[in-house]
Amino acid sequence: MKSTQYIGNKTFSVIDKAKVDPLSDEVRIKVAYTGVCGTDVHIYHGMMDKRVQMPVTIGHEMSGTIDAIGADVTNYKVGDKVVVRPLDDRGVLPSDKGFNHICENLKFIGIDSPGSMQQFWNVPAFTLHQLPKNTDLKLAALIEPLAVAVHDVRLSELKKHETAVVLGGGPIGLLVALVAQQTGAQVFVSEINPKRIAKAKELGLNVIDPTKVDLIEEVKNRTENRRADVVFEVAGVQATLDIMTEVAGIRGRIVMVAIHGQKKEVDLFKFFWKELRLIGARVYEKEDYERAITLVTENKVGFENMITDIQPLTNIQSVFEQIDLNPDGMKVLMDCQQ
Amino acid sequence: MKSTQYIGNKTFSVIDKAKVDPLSDEVRIKVAYTGVCGTDVHIYHGMMDKRVQMPVTIGHEMSGTIDAIGADVTNYKVGDKVVVRPLDDRGVLPSDKGFNHICENLKFIGIDSPGSMQQFWNVPAFTLHQLPKNTDLKLAALIEPLAVAVHDVRLSELKKHETAVVLGGGPIGLLVALVAQQTGAQVFVSEINPKRIAKAKELGLNVIDPTKVDLIEEVKNRTENRRADVVFEVAGVQATLDIMTEVAGIRGRIVMVAIHGQKKEVDLFKFFWKELRLIGARVYEKEDYERAITLVTENKVGFENMITDIQPLTNIQSVFEQIDLNPDGMKVLMDCQQ
Repeated sequence: MKSTQYIGNKTFSVIDKAKVDPLSDEVRIKVAYTGVCGTDVHIYHGMMDKRVQMPVTIGHEMSGTIDAIGADVTNYKVGDKVVVRPLDDRGVLPSDKGFNHICENLKFIGIDSPGSMQQFWNVPAFTLHQLPKNTDLKLAALIEPLAVAVHDVRLSELKKHETAVVLGGGPIGLLVALVAQQTGAQVFVSEINPKRIAKAKELGLNVIDPTKVDLIEEVKNRTENRRADVVFEVAGVQATLDIMTEVAGIRGRIVMVAIHGQKKEVDLFKFFWKELRLIGARVYEKEDYERAITLVTENKVGFENMITDIQPLTNIQSVFEQIDLNPDGMKVLMDCQQ
Repeated sequence: MKSTQYIGNKTFSVIDKAKVDPLSDEVRIKVAYTGVCGTDVHIYHGMMDKRVQMPVTIGHEMSGTIDAIGADVTNYKVGDKVVVRPLDDRGVLPSDKGFNHICENLKFIGIDSPGSMQQFWNVPAFTLHQLPKNTDLKLAALIEPLAVAVHDVRLSELKKHETAVVLGGGPIGLLVALVAQQTGAQVFVSEINPKRIAKAKELGLNVIDPTKVDLIEEVKNRTENRRADVVFEVAGVQATLDIMTEVAGIRGRIVMVAIHGQKKEVDLFKFFWKELRLIGARVYEKEDYERAITLVTENKVGFENMITDIQPLTNIQSVFEQIDLNPDGMKVLMDCQQ
């Protein structure tokens, strides 16, 4: 079978290797598609060389079918369509208070252990979610990032009559906006990149370009001065941190989706003054995956518009090179069947 | 009657003026005691000269008895013991979403309109809370700051089996710790000032001096590595902002009690990584006042230890001068009956 390996120095190799039989608690998946995550690009850039054990097969946004099952796996059969929730929480401790998805010893499959950028992939059966027979396997590769968005929106407790502002219209930002819109809430995406603005509009989202209109005034006008009930900070820059405390109304909830590698300046006075709340949100829980599966299977929002390119797995090197050259793209999938 | 006025330039005057009859929706209070709040000291330092309309009578941490009632006031009578919740929310708007206590047009009585550092004080009846007959009027002057602490602890949703760390052992920090301890939770106060440490211990609180022991390790040891479920940031300095995200455990709630005049650096990565929550908390709501009244009336915790000095109202100038000279003191009351 074909497999890929990140070997450092912005380089992937494509290798041939033998399929391995699953252990008793594992299944072997015939991978259909693997999407490229921002974290994968981070790894490609060498930013996580200390964490990943090279050579390493990365990838975790995937879909596939079961190819073989271990002796002790009873609830799946060969041919089942599945996705993997890539969280290995077997090291969970009482001090994690039951929050297994972010437990201190969490291992992320596809970063800390081999991932899905290969034709066949062995994973513990507890990581699986079964897909309905009619789920499209291309769209199913979006379930992992969509589950992030579902988690973010769930933690925000966004309600039907409320208004949400999503700061940043990249792949996660747009998925957050699409999920937020499913609640019936009024949703605005704030984005400055013309291609991303066009993509957001294509997905039926309301977009505000803060370089063209005064974002705060626009949101005030559209909310009878209530401002945003919920803000999703997905951009990860100082400008959006400055906006988030401004655009949020009284008791507004700000969900911190972006990963800020350095300490940043925050207007804590506004947290005090308006009794704002900041909600950290990371990955997903089981129920978020189930909801994402339902959303993708029903596909009421045209998730196919999120996929801007599909390339054969063997093109992995050029896929990552192209992502660097074209940062406006949304989701790029690799077809792992070829 | 005697009244006092802040006239700018770190100066108060004591004047004689006639008592005024209450308007139809007002009562006239014979003020018993008025405590000096940090905000009052701020005004004295000239930091709020743009907001206050000099000459102005300040003061809002008070207790008293009703001396006269307006024609339309039916639920109070002369002689009733009362405290004032000094929030004038008559300008509330729909965009305030029902959060009247922090509404955009809120006027704070004692800052934006005359306060209680005088012998008699006219206020709208809607600001009153009746005290039980047996409530000590000295301790009752602590109800306003205590209600702040009650509000902070209520918003934290601190539970019996949890651990709270209070960063900063000034007057509000110690009140927060005392209220938090009433929930049955394990509470630690982090403080570096020896006099404040001694005061906290006198009040029966657990204190950690982070200059003497490693605060994080100590809290981990005392919580089987769970760290703090709730953190109250009451100190308002960069050091405690750095500690707050460190000492909080997974899904820890951090209540922002301190007023940070400038934007400050915050470790947002930890909010993401541990799914921390930041909860802005400002003043109090009606129910917080009622709870504070009960706590002061029952006085199971020795609130009298919070009062470090009582001076006649006419000494107002030296009271403020002494507070500057002795920043270790806790609550200073002015006896407004003299």
